[in-house]
Amino acid sequence: MLYHIFQETALRNFTENVFLKMGCSVAHATLAADVLIKSDLRGIDSHGVARLTGYVRLWEKNRINTQPNIKIIHQTATTATVDGDAGLGLVVAPFAMQIAIEKAEKYGSGWVAVKNSNHFGIATYHALMAVEKDMIGFAMTNASPLVAPTFSTERMLGTNPMCYAFPAGNYPPLVVDLATSTAANGKLEIAQRKGENVPEGWIQDKDGNVALNPADLKNGGSLLPLGSDREHGSHKGFGLGATVDILSAVLSGASYGPWVPPFVAFLDPLDNQPGEGIGHFLGAMRVDGFRPKEDFKHHLDNWITRFKAAKPINPAQPIIIPGEPETIAEIDRKLNGIPLIDVVVNDLNDLAEKLGVSKLIGEG
Amino acid sequence: MLYHIFQETALRNFTENVFLKMGCSVAHATLAADVLIKSDLRGIDSHGVARLTGYVRLWEKNRINTQPNIKIIHQTATTATVDGDAGLGLVVAPFAMQIAIEKAEKYGSGWVAVKNSNHFGIATYHALMAVEKDMIGFAMTNASPLVAPTFSTERMLGTNPMCYAFPAGNYPPLVVDLATSTAANGKLEIAQRKGENVPEGWIQDKDGNVALNPADLKNGGSLLPLGSDREHGSHKGFGLGATVDILSAVLSGASYGPWVPPFVAFLDPLDNQPGEGIGHFLGAMRVDGFRPKEDFKHHLDNWITRFKAAKPINPAQPIIIPGEPETIAEIDRKLNGIPLIDVVVNDLNDLAEKLGVSKLIGEG
Repeated sequence: MLYHIFQETALRNFTENVFLKMGCSVAHATLAADVLIKSDLRGIDSHGVARLTGYVRLWEKNRINTQPNIKIIHQTATTATVDGDAGLGLVVAPFAMQIAIEKAEKYGSGWVAVKNSNHFGIATYHALMAVEKDMIGFAMTNASPLVAPTFSTERMLGTNPMCYAFPAGNYPPLVVDLATSTAANGKLEIAQRKGENVPEGWIQDKDGNVALNPADLKNGGSLLPLGSDREHGSHKGFGLGATVDILSAVLSGASYGPWVPPFVAFLDPLDNQPGEGIGHFLGAMRVDGFRPKEDFKHHLDNWITRFKAAKPINPAQPIIIPGEPETIAEIDRKLNGIPLIDVVVNDLNDLAEKLGVSKLIGEG
Repeated sequence: MLYHIFQETALRNFTENVFLKMGCSVAHATLAADVLIKSDLRGIDSHGVARLTGYVRLWEKNRINTQPNIKIIHQTATTATVDGDAGLGLVVAPFAMQIAIEKAEKYGSGWVAVKNSNHFGIATYHALMAVEKDMIGFAMTNASPLVAPTFSTERMLGTNPMCYAFPAGNYPPLVVDLATSTAANGKLEIAQRKGENVPEGWIQDKDGNVALNPADLKNGGSLLPLGSDREHGSHKGFGLGATVDILSAVLSGASYGPWVPPFVAFLDPLDNQPGEGIGHFLGAMRVDGFRPKEDFKHHLDNWITRFKAAKPINPAQPIIIPGEPETIAEIDRKLNGIPLIDVVVNDLNDLAEKLGVSKLIGEG
């Protein structure tokens, strides 16, 4: 596959220009671009600018409102529900997390459920907003149905990610951010593009048989919950995906389960929606609500040091602390630029032409 | 294997008598027995009265204080840290959850980290305390190190369960309660007792090789995180186990990772403990902090109805809603009694003789 390298600033400017052309305010365009670029910087290529054309297509179908009136519709001292007014999740989720942080500053913790939103990018972005304030950040979202419950052939849940982020002392934040399916959909797309099979346990075909060909997913198959099969705990992955769906949507008034509106614009949402749009759930807890923050950070550093020293199976492959590879990618890509594959660059430049913004020019 | 059937009340009285002999107050003995009996009623045989001899042995080694002064040592409006004073987790955790519930009644949510505690039984018990008040309940705990991180041979984490419980309307509560390892330790013990191999992906041997013989676990092997191997997402199971450890212990001041004091009394805790005892993390959020509780319950019922109707792979095996098998067991066992295997009954009656309490007499 061919790559081109782009400096962060060039990619950021391009992305802002696209959001501005969609009718976003300067503040919203800047924020939405920041979320996408953070994903590319951290090496989560599937959730960065590669998704930009997807957002544009949803906007073209009037499924994204680029001038939303995002507001709190229900609250207590430490809880709130936000109506995203069909806005970009990329701006709705930071709005909601800001509320959670303000409540946590006053009362120790804050929790915000969001309805009527759209795809919010990487959960890590939102959880890290809390970490910057010496809080523990939580972020989750439901998503287009692709995952079948244990014992079912029907796509009932999204890959429904959950993220927990913790502030450390000398180390970068410890970030646990995981799809509750065995494999993320992006990995299937990569395998299909390369014409390769996927490992047993990632997907099943439309009848619930073991499947290795990623094309089976498009032909009525489904992703499997984390655990892959009952014997290896897929009911646990299903339970985690269900938890994300209930906290994000049943609690907020968003749509849930098989009714979650698809991210791809060529599929229309089902009729008789039980809620509005997709849902998120965001939270922040002050570390010093439990113990002095220096103590917490000291012990989290000690935790990380001890786990990094855990005896490896193979000395060439040390233990990976959650979030560590993404932090390393971020340092590298800030310095050396962000690689994008040809197909993404071409997509973005077709988009540039259509919308009348300056094209991307890579460095090699 | 031979079973004897015991009525709930008989088992409850027996268990209370044991805790009284250990020096617990009547209130503590009643509560601790209630937690264990709830586990047996719900069919979680590994965490019920079968554990009673384990608690007694820890008490005999002065590792459990049966007259603890459990107290809040740090708090904000919605957060608190509790020192369990080396008490039974079976009474410390309900104390902490009660604080979380009271904070949630006032401010919408409440979160309590616990240090210096012991094994708290099933997480479900504590989370359901919140559900009874129309709140969402959260409960997690760290535990004796048995699970190796991805790429490691070293036992660094417990099976660290997490539980989320939600109040429904016409259905019983939806309860997601899962060990963050692929298989719970109890399943290994059952396989070993029967002399059977376990499925690939549950354990590894001391060198990190695939292992099928449960004896390999005792010989320096380890349980695998949910996902089993890197290709199937074991880094996610590791991340979830890490999250439980950090929220339960790094946040509260309990011991964490490989330092968590072992549940088995024949193993002494490691030197240079970084904290005190084992840790828990408990939380409660008012449903009506987000939307009217009738709306939430109506939509959770709708969620459950729709998921129960998800197309099955095999019509003889319908989709299982999280917590449903345990609810069915509870109804059945309240009516028809609780089956205990011979080896457990003999253990308990040896204990009865030693402590001078009335023996258990089964019904068949």
